[in-house]
Amino acid sequence: MGASSGDNKTGLLIIDMISDFRFEDAEELFPFALQAAECIRGLKREAKAAGLPVIYVNDNFGKWHHDFKTITEFARETEKGRALADLVGPEDDDYFVLKPMHSAFYSTALEVLLEHLEINKLILTGVTSDICVLFSANDAYMRGYELMIPEDCVAAVRKEQNEYALKYMERVLKADTQASMKLQLGRLAKAR
Amino acid sequence: MGASSGDNKTGLLIIDMISDFRFEDAEELFPFALQAAECIRGLKREAKAAGLPVIYVNDNFGKWHHDFKTITEFARETEKGRALADLVGPEDDDYFVLKPMHSAFYSTALEVLLEHLEINKLILTGVTSDICVLFSANDAYMRGYELMIPEDCVAAVRKEQNEYALKYMERVLKADTQASMKLQLGRLAKAR
Amino acid sequence: MGASSGDNKTGLLIIDMISDFRFEDAEELFPFALQAAECIRGLKREAKAAGLPVIYVNDNFGKWHHDFKTITEFARETEKGRALADLVGPEDDDYFVLKPMHSAFYSTALEVLLEHLEINKLILTGVTSDICVLFSANDAYMRGYELMIPEDCVAAVRKEQNEYALKYMERVLKADTQASMKLQLGRLAKAR
Amino acid sequence: MGASSGDNKTGLLIIDMISDFRFEDAEELFPFALQAAECIRGLKREAKAAGLPVIYVNDNFGKWHHDFKTITEFARETEKGRALADLVGPEDDDYFVLKPMHSAFYSTALEVLLEHLEINKLILTGVTSDICVLFSANDAYMRGYELMIPEDCVAAVRKEQNEYALKYMERVLKADTQASMKLQLGRLAKAR
Repeated sequence: MGASSGDNKTGLLIIDMISDFRFEDAEELFPFALQAAECIRGLKREAKAAGLPVIYVNDNFGKWHHDFKTITEFARETEKGRALADLVGPEDDDYFVLKPMHSAFYSTALEVLLEHLEINKLILTGVTSDICVLFSANDAYMRGYELMIPEDCVAAVRKEQNEYALKYMERVLKADTQASMKLQLGRLAKAR
Repeated sequence: MGASSGDNKTGLLIIDMISDFRFEDAEELFPFALQAAECIRGLKREAKAAGLPVIYVNDNFGKWHHDFKTITEFARETEKGRALADLVGPEDDDYFVLKPMHSAFYSTALEVLLEHLEINKLILTGVTSDICVLFSANDAYMRGYELMIPEDCVAAVRKEQNEYALKYMERVLKADTQASMKLQLGRLAKAR
Repeated sequence: MGASSGDNKTGLLIIDMISDFRFEDAEELFPFALQAAECIRGLKREAKAAGLPVIYVNDNFGKWHHDFKTITEFARETEKGRALADLVGPEDDDYFVLKPMHSAFYSTALEVLLEHLEINKLILTGVTSDICVLFSANDAYMRGYELMIPEDCVAAVRKEQNEYALKYMERVLKADTQASMKLQLGRLAKAR
Repeated sequence: MGASSGDNKTGLLIIDMISDFRFEDAEELFPFALQAAECIRGLKREAKAAGLPVIYVNDNFGKWHHDFKTITEFARETEKGRALADLVGPEDDDYFVLKPMHSAFYSTALEVLLEHLEINKLILTGVTSDICVLFSANDAYMRGYELMIPEDCVAAVRKEQNEYALKYMERVLKADTQASMKLQLGRLAKAR
């Protein structure tokens, strides 16, 4: 239903950062993902201090019997997965949505959750910027969400894929891609 | 995206009233549909006077090559279809949405249109109350729309099916089912 | 995507049987739900013996932080909830889908899961027959699934609501509503 | 519902080629679009000869009162729009779907139509390759459709955007992007 234009409540989405990193290209993606995780960690702390909801949107990896807790435990069994989960692992008061495909919106309850939380502005973070983040950003844009995709909080397998995705989302989806430290989430929270 | 609670813009939906009435049970449905058409006609006039959008949501009857104009022309080729179209046929400034299945929301652009028009309160009218109107009402309810389903503006093949559907939508979907003349659309329009 | 007409793989859905039964009308619903649970228990055993997937589709009760395991634990804290969970509680190899609204299909991954499992025939069971089961059945019907809704495996707050819902789903959705013992799931499984 | 793996029925989608070309960047896009139109024209002829369905998926340009015929007439009122419509305008036996946003699948009946036609392999053509074609391709991929996106039948405002989009859809969506003349639609049609 129609978003009110007056208030702009922001939510932080953390996409596909919980993983055992046992996939093709994991080796190449990892250092970039780790760097993004450091930045997401700071942004998440800021978001929670400002009272903004934090939502994990994570692949279910075709593990239809598993809930997010189990998926997180599996992820922590590998060294890479544990390194990321140590930095940006979910806490009890974070929301989570398991997605079966690339987009955070496709066949998930995300839209109902965002409506429930009265969110109409999204900060997208996570991996990979050119696939799951991009699919999710496209879907968010069609649904009328305003987008912030801080360039230091996303990563792709190759640097140029990341750069192209960021430029694309800026040009086509009007996303604000400036670095996370410039977002000033405290100010955003006060503004509503 | 999240509906604002403050303003309540209302839209009038006219469901499946454009038809050649060449289907099973058409003979039984027709007199009830005709009666409903008289009431919808009055309600539509009132809605337009009050500046409220009128949206036809109509079956495409599996005629994927046809637009709504063609479907209306085909409907007018039968006596029954013409009788209804004379009473509640679409005008140039009415909106329309073709639906491939029972619900007005399933695989249609209705939700985007309602968001575009900033509508969050729906008046459902048309046939049949216990199938396409009910499917649509259920879907509208899950999406958070407030519902008015005036009892004199819907019809079913059998009287008791109509009555049961109305009671169901009142009980489960919190629909306001009082007769159209009590809706006072002029007041609704002013209230926003 | 298009279902193949040749093979008919069946899945058993168990809707909203996991609950703490702390809601309006819970007192009235409980004895009917308990009776249904006994029948679902038998049907589930038969389904698993025949190798058919069992999928729990359950309300998340607005508890967006909870996974299905936690929801099941909460349900078991009340006497009524425990009685049902003892009969038809989820096992490790059952699938589950949390739904935020009434329909099993609305804002859930159910459709992707069914496609993944190549299921095109559904047995719907659970509560209540006239709300969540009905909403789910309508949505399943529009998506082309063949429906079995055994009359002894569903329940509503009032007996006549249950009966009307069953008749409705038989008439409108062409559902097979004969009692569970007549389904012969073993035969179904062999047939594919 | 689950696609059958055996038969692969192909449909040709023509995206956003019907337009009055009164938008930003229209001047730059036009020569590329014209070139693509020539190739789509040939491909469409071949598709129809082979008995494959041709589906126009076109922006409604926020003209909610207009059907596709009217939109085509408006498009033909400009020189650019007429030039394209002369080459690849819709014929009476072509299918059409009006889309309110970028993706051919978002809030449209496309998926129901494709299922009705039993199509599970799509040839995407039209403009622009990096926006509406890409959004549509992403959505098609998540829904399990096999994709052909002939490089000579799509266009973007800038050549490098077109090239990047094609490479992206090849890499991420496993799309076959070879030129239209290599597709041999006659063979495809026979194969099923």
